[in-house]
Amino acid sequence: MTENGQWRAADALGWVADHEAEHIRRLTEFVAIESVSMDAGKANEVLAASQWLAAECRRIGLENVVVHHTAGLPIVSADWLHAGPDAPTVLIYGHVDVQPVEPLADWTVPPFGITRKDERLYGRGSTDDKGQLLMHLIALEALFRAGGGRLPCNFRLVVDAEEEVGSPSLLPWMEAHTELMAADLAIVSDSPMHAYNTPSIGCSLRGIVNLEVHVRSASGDLHAGQFGGAIPNAARTLARMLVELHDENGRVTVPGFYEGVDELGDAERALYARAPFDEAEWLGSIGVLGPEGEQGFSTLERTWIRPTLEINGMFSGHTAAGMKAIVPCQATAKLSCRMVASQDPELIQKRVADHVRRLAPPNVACEVVPVNIVPPAVVDHRLPAVQLAVDSLNEAFGREVFLVRDGGAIPAVAFLKNRFGIDTILMGFGCPDENKHGPDEWLSLLHFRKGIEALIRYWPKLRVAGK
Amino acid sequence: MTENGQWRAADALGWVADHEAEHIRRLTEFVAIESVSMDAGKANEVLAASQWLAAECRRIGLENVVVHHTAGLPIVSADWLHAGPDAPTVLIYGHVDVQPVEPLADWTVPPFGITRKDERLYGRGSTDDKGQLLMHLIALEALFRAGGGRLPCNFRLVVDAEEEVGSPSLLPWMEAHTELMAADLAIVSDSPMHAYNTPSIGCSLRGIVNLEVHVRSASGDLHAGQFGGAIPNAARTLARMLVELHDENGRVTVPGFYEGVDELGDAERALYARAPFDEAEWLGSIGVLGPEGEQGFSTLERTWIRPTLEINGMFSGHTAAGMKAIVPCQATAKLSCRMVASQDPELIQKRVADHVRRLAPPNVACEVVPVNIVPPAVVDHRLPAVQLAVDSLNEAFGREVFLVRDGGAIPAVAFLKNRFGIDTILMGFGCPDENKHGPDEWLSLLHFRKGIEALIRYWPKLRVAGK
Repeated sequence: MTENGQWRAADALGWVADHEAEHIRRLTEFVAIESVSMDAGKANEVLAASQWLAAECRRIGLENVVVHHTAGLPIVSADWLHAGPDAPTVLIYGHVDVQPVEPLADWTVPPFGITRKDERLYGRGSTDDKGQLLMHLIALEALFRAGGGRLPCNFRLVVDAEEEVGSPSLLPWMEAHTELMAADLAIVSDSPMHAYNTPSIGCSLRGIVNLEVHVRSASGDLHAGQFGGAIPNAARTLARMLVELHDENGRVTVPGFYEGVDELGDAERALYARAPFDEAEWLGSIGVLGPEGEQGFSTLERTWIRPTLEINGMFSGHTAAGMKAIVPCQATAKLSCRMVASQDPELIQKRVADHVRRLAPPNVACEVVPVNIVPPAVVDHRLPAVQLAVDSLNEAFGREVFLVRDGGAIPAVAFLKNRFGIDTILMGFGCPDENKHGPDEWLSLLHFRKGIEALIRYWPKLRVAGK
Repeated sequence: MTENGQWRAADALGWVADHEAEHIRRLTEFVAIESVSMDAGKANEVLAASQWLAAECRRIGLENVVVHHTAGLPIVSADWLHAGPDAPTVLIYGHVDVQPVEPLADWTVPPFGITRKDERLYGRGSTDDKGQLLMHLIALEALFRAGGGRLPCNFRLVVDAEEEVGSPSLLPWMEAHTELMAADLAIVSDSPMHAYNTPSIGCSLRGIVNLEVHVRSASGDLHAGQFGGAIPNAARTLARMLVELHDENGRVTVPGFYEGVDELGDAERALYARAPFDEAEWLGSIGVLGPEGEQGFSTLERTWIRPTLEINGMFSGHTAAGMKAIVPCQATAKLSCRMVASQDPELIQKRVADHVRRLAPPNVACEVVPVNIVPPAVVDHRLPAVQLAVDSLNEAFGREVFLVRDGGAIPAVAFLKNRFGIDTILMGFGCPDENKHGPDEWLSLLHFRKGIEALIRYWPKLRVAGK
């Protein structure tokens, strides 16, 4: 018996190490399922991933495993609630859906499967989020085995299949199943650590506002020789509008865009400033030749605490191989804004849409479609559960742990806090250059091992601390 | 016998009218062949279209019909050279290849076939150029029948299958077959008339310079939450570069872009100014809300006598349905310039490429690929053959005929003039709003009928005028 009760870390860790090949084989099975939630044609694959996860939950000993039908893609819930009334109840949230794999030609490994190279596990979902979700199940299985079939805390699992499309079914589902949401704390492992082998705990998530902009300049594509030079070109008009969205200082020109953005307190700024950051190395790891952003802010501040507006995609006219002599009549841009906590996403969405409409010249038709919203979230870094998480990561990695902000967005985190008052520990195990939504997504094998260890060390500590 | 010899127009026209259903059925067969030269996967269909055309030539009585193998797609030649040494030899040039039909969803009729609606013949190639090419064969067949198996002039036919991709094989083929190029005059029917039921003869064609621009800002698409706001966005960078290509007066900013552009003489300007043009109606017919172009020039001048630079296509990042939270790492634009006669296309291509490269900021990689060139061409409107063509159109349509410039480009026309000294009569039968390269391409049935009549009236006149 250790000071943390009957769960000897050494036993659990030994079992994990002995079964690593089996765990990676399981991850391969999981990643092989093409659960792309954005692709309506893959709904059966997404369901298969949820079912695979449900079977895995049952196998390790979780109870009340249900694959819930929703208006969209399924949600899996499971629990184990026999740790006693004094033990905290932890809600683990993750997702089985993944981003599309296009452009396929840019992958150097098969996207749907795990390829191990140089201490990395490559595959779509290896880090986001199948791999990180499976790390939790492996940690729980190890604790079940080390604890004679018992876990140190009560656990609930909620596994989404629409995280990559903004979790539209999750909030209604949570509202309809409030009894399954009774928890003291949530944990999400769906983000990168501050750097490779540099553990961190996230203290905020930026929110997202998505919009689509459609410009139409004529009833059809027109012959560039007959009409070129005399009529509006939808591609050029859209390009002009997109350029106008930022000023020469890299600031977003939407009126009121920065309204409500928090200034950081000195204490918190000092905490974040401790996190090591080598900009040249960071840029080099993603193949970027030079930074670009809002003047007056550092690169970390630009991604952690400043709202942004990015073009996620744009297209107009002839996009296939070869040339086509047309003046394109339509152009589309997909825009997303990241918002920081304390901003009102609906207001921002409306302001951006209004501004884009105002930028359209009178000789084109412009439609702006608000697509969806993910609210921002902040985690109070003074919570005892945050400190225990820091300790666990420190023990597992043997390295200093940093409090960071995260530029990403996870709809569930804001829902849990805003609706149920549940704080979330953002304990991510990815890497900043993991190609999360791009080709050759990967998870560090070191992070996979050490992350499982951190979880195994965390839950007994949390039990001792009590609710 | 009429004044034009043994070819009674009434006989020939009566036969054409009696067999119209059959001619439209033949056009349907021709249009049904999916001869998209831009699509490498359709090479067999393009060959089938050339073979169909060759069979048709043989059927009506042309001789020496050959489908020539080239480095690219086939060229068909045919002739009938028994009109005697005093009769002029006319080279008819046309093409069997068509533009791609994407986006298919925008078609309201099947693209590969003829659908007749409201006195229009719809289908890909109905006007560009299968329909207009077939009009020549119908006119020749009618004259053969009216003339007891003889034609009023000597004829050569050269039919391309790569016109829509810049005719890369045509010039080498012409060089290798100079004996087949012996002609006094060429005729091309591959352009629109000035307006519906408003016959015209073209006096110039703009040339084309095509380029592709590739911007790369990172080694892969990056997560918009983690990286957004701090790194260059390839879509935004490209948009900025594209916007910089024109100044606030709509002038192209490439240094030297307007060098060598002719000023029109007063006499020629007066000729063109006679062509009726209702800008509001013209814009309305193509669904354009307001004109846009170089300040200081009228809409007709912008499309006829001014060089232009247009974006034919652009794409970056996520272009499929739904949202994808990325900062795109790549962006591409397809650009084309139209040049007027007396400009040097190679010089313009180089200047545009250099300028685009200069516009790229230092934090992205930019590649500019020169794709191809079509030289511009001018036709001397004082040629007697032009006046006879005007007379024939006037007789057939019963309306005033206008001399116009054409914004389009036909590689063969410049080749014929520059290499072989052959002038080309640009006698197009399309309409300005015919959706030539877009969905629902159509040919006016009135133009089909009257155009065939104009050709039937033209060749006997040309014979009488002699060489």
